[in-house]
Amino acid sequence: MNAYEEYFLMKEEDVAAYVKNKMKDFKDSVDMKSEEIGDGNLNYVFKVTDEHGQSVIVKQAGHVTRISEDMTLTIDRIKREANVLILHDKYAPQLVPKVYLYDDIMKCFIMEDLSDHTILRKAFLSGETFPQLINDITTYIVNTTISTIDSVMDPKDKKELQKEYTNPELCEISEKLVYTEPFNDCNDRNILYPPNADWIKEQIYDDPELRLVAGKLKNDFLTKSQALIHGDLHTGSIFVSKTSTKVIDPEFTFYGPIGYDLGNMIAHLLFAYVNGKVKEDESFCMWTLKSINDVVDLFVEKFSRKWDAVVTDVMAQELGFKSWYISTVLEDTLGVAGLELIRRVVGMAQVEDIVSIEDEQKRIEAERFCLRVGREFIKQRHQFKTGNDVVKTIQSFL
Amino acid sequence: MNAYEEYFLMKEEDVAAYVKNKMKDFKDSVDMKSEEIGDGNLNYVFKVTDEHGQSVIVKQAGHVTRISEDMTLTIDRIKREANVLILHDKYAPQLVPKVYLYDDIMKCFIMEDLSDHTILRKAFLSGETFPQLINDITTYIVNTTISTIDSVMDPKDKKELQKEYTNPELCEISEKLVYTEPFNDCNDRNILYPPNADWIKEQIYDDPELRLVAGKLKNDFLTKSQALIHGDLHTGSIFVSKTSTKVIDPEFTFYGPIGYDLGNMIAHLLFAYVNGKVKEDESFCMWTLKSINDVVDLFVEKFSRKWDAVVTDVMAQELGFKSWYISTVLEDTLGVAGLELIRRVVGMAQVEDIVSIEDEQKRIEAERFCLRVGREFIKQRHQFKTGNDVVKTIQSFL
Repeated sequence: MNAYEEYFLMKEEDVAAYVKNKMKDFKDSVDMKSEEIGDGNLNYVFKVTDEHGQSVIVKQAGHVTRISEDMTLTIDRIKREANVLILHDKYAPQLVPKVYLYDDIMKCFIMEDLSDHTILRKAFLSGETFPQLINDITTYIVNTTISTIDSVMDPKDKKELQKEYTNPELCEISEKLVYTEPFNDCNDRNILYPPNADWIKEQIYDDPELRLVAGKLKNDFLTKSQALIHGDLHTGSIFVSKTSTKVIDPEFTFYGPIGYDLGNMIAHLLFAYVNGKVKEDESFCMWTLKSINDVVDLFVEKFSRKWDAVVTDVMAQELGFKSWYISTVLEDTLGVAGLELIRRVVGMAQVEDIVSIEDEQKRIEAERFCLRVGREFIKQRHQFKTGNDVVKTIQSFL
Repeated sequence: MNAYEEYFLMKEEDVAAYVKNKMKDFKDSVDMKSEEIGDGNLNYVFKVTDEHGQSVIVKQAGHVTRISEDMTLTIDRIKREANVLILHDKYAPQLVPKVYLYDDIMKCFIMEDLSDHTILRKAFLSGETFPQLINDITTYIVNTTISTIDSVMDPKDKKELQKEYTNPELCEISEKLVYTEPFNDCNDRNILYPPNADWIKEQIYDDPELRLVAGKLKNDFLTKSQALIHGDLHTGSIFVSKTSTKVIDPEFTFYGPIGYDLGNMIAHLLFAYVNGKVKEDESFCMWTLKSINDVVDLFVEKFSRKWDAVVTDVMAQELGFKSWYISTVLEDTLGVAGLELIRRVVGMAQVEDIVSIEDEQKRIEAERFCLRVGREFIKQRHQFKTGNDVVKTIQSFL
């Protein structure tokens, strides 16, 4: 069979034939359906089913991003994503989708269908809560990151892994959207909610202390080769059901600060909280605040326990090293949480949790609340030791 | 001509024929001489001359290091060294030898002969001083490092450069010899001067605070991808004449902390000082102390001036960022200077400046002085802002 020997961007009908061609389980299927279900910014995602109820997901990279025709990316990024999913399945079993096949010609991979799961952001917008979520997500962050740090791996192997996951194009998106544009709109791409525009310019663009710290945090993002991180761990990158959590879309993965992943989780839990607040859903708000508390405390507890089990470097076993290491991760975490709170309000990649607020006054207040908390997280990032410290700061701006 | 199509380790007689074969300038030479002149730990270095007085240097990598048969290294390291010399010749013209040819099969390169220069360590041991040395070496450190940082380069290009110069094997040597073994002799390779052994064990091995900071500095060395550094900038890696300075042997190059290069310079200037002190050569001692002062102040002055000229990242142009950046480099610098002072006394790669001291009491004192200053540099590394701060600390231990 000579099909699929040259890359082309597949349409719905192509994908069904592709799966039939590639996967033994679909060899005898006669009534296959394919549907584009992607709503991300970069890739094309299809769900393929057959008459027996079997289903898989196909994710293919295109040459331009879906968010903007001006942003072109090498299609090789999809290989990194497939590989890191396979790697994370080893480090954090059950917490990422299974990859069945990676195709280096078609720049796509076939993976487990998670249609019985919901995207966490959507579920949050409906006020749903998930009892195992924070336990799962902290296990995911701890296990995937700590397994790849120098104190655990042989540093020689770490350097090869870091090389393999060098990710210039996707990192550039974060460098611009998270660490640069929100603080001065230098590329003229910020989207300010008009009634809030002047206030934001004054509070963000005109705060030199904030810009200075953002610059330092950018320097960390650019130079701190700590662990292989997810790199885009928001509530749109997490699939949930009442009994299962699956982290998807790790295409931004690279060797960066561990706090980047945890910080993103905190920010997006807070966006969910803010949305719940507008809807006056007090029990949802209590649950999200408690989740912010727990995501910090469980991270610290599990990271600390795992550290004792897996660290091999004698210099990292010195008394005091572990607690210093964790405190630096928390500092990075709060810095990133603050940046994310700001950039998702100010920058070009905004979140449904905020933009869906229809009442003008409530949206203004929600935006200002996120920006105030974000600014405090960034400036006081050294001060947070527990989940309670984080929650108290949030509550102080209510 | 089919010669040199397969790698072999050249002997003196092979090297002359090799140069005649490879270099047009030597095509008609009839009386060529070749001599092994290497005294480094890793490679083979030959000087080739002809009857017209032409000369070149050939440097070839072998499969095992010369320091220990147990340490094997991929011979590809020589490619990195040739490439970085070519790169540094662009960033810091006149301050590295010219590379004429790199041979990927023979794993060697042909470069400028610097026989009219002396190895700086040997010159220092004879009490010689060099009026332009500190000016040249600070230009070299500033220009080679700042040209490769994220705030100056496009971060995408930086990531590719970092990938190219990933250097697992040579970094591992530093990770062990500089950052691990000196603090507990975990690999049983430390070489303590017997009359000082108990004192050293007590002062170094039994100091948990020192070991903790050493662990933090190791973490920096492993994860801080700041700039393309030389990685082994001691006085044995610098060729000097009264009018010229050439930095050689950059095979340890990788993306690491800028302070690693500057810190090494400070430590080895201090070793020269200590040797001069034993010889009661007061004018040499004054010159080396002044050089330590100047290497810090000139570095800061030139780095700061160059920063204004070349930094492109808007976030790095914020008021306060440059001085913060330089203060972190100085902190790293003093940490590394301290580590180098300790590891060259305690560890397996010791320096002539110390081991050549014949008088037992004087050697004991010299060793203890280096260790005391080293420990202070490490523990107080945040406190040094100027050359004078460094010199005052040194003088406080006299």
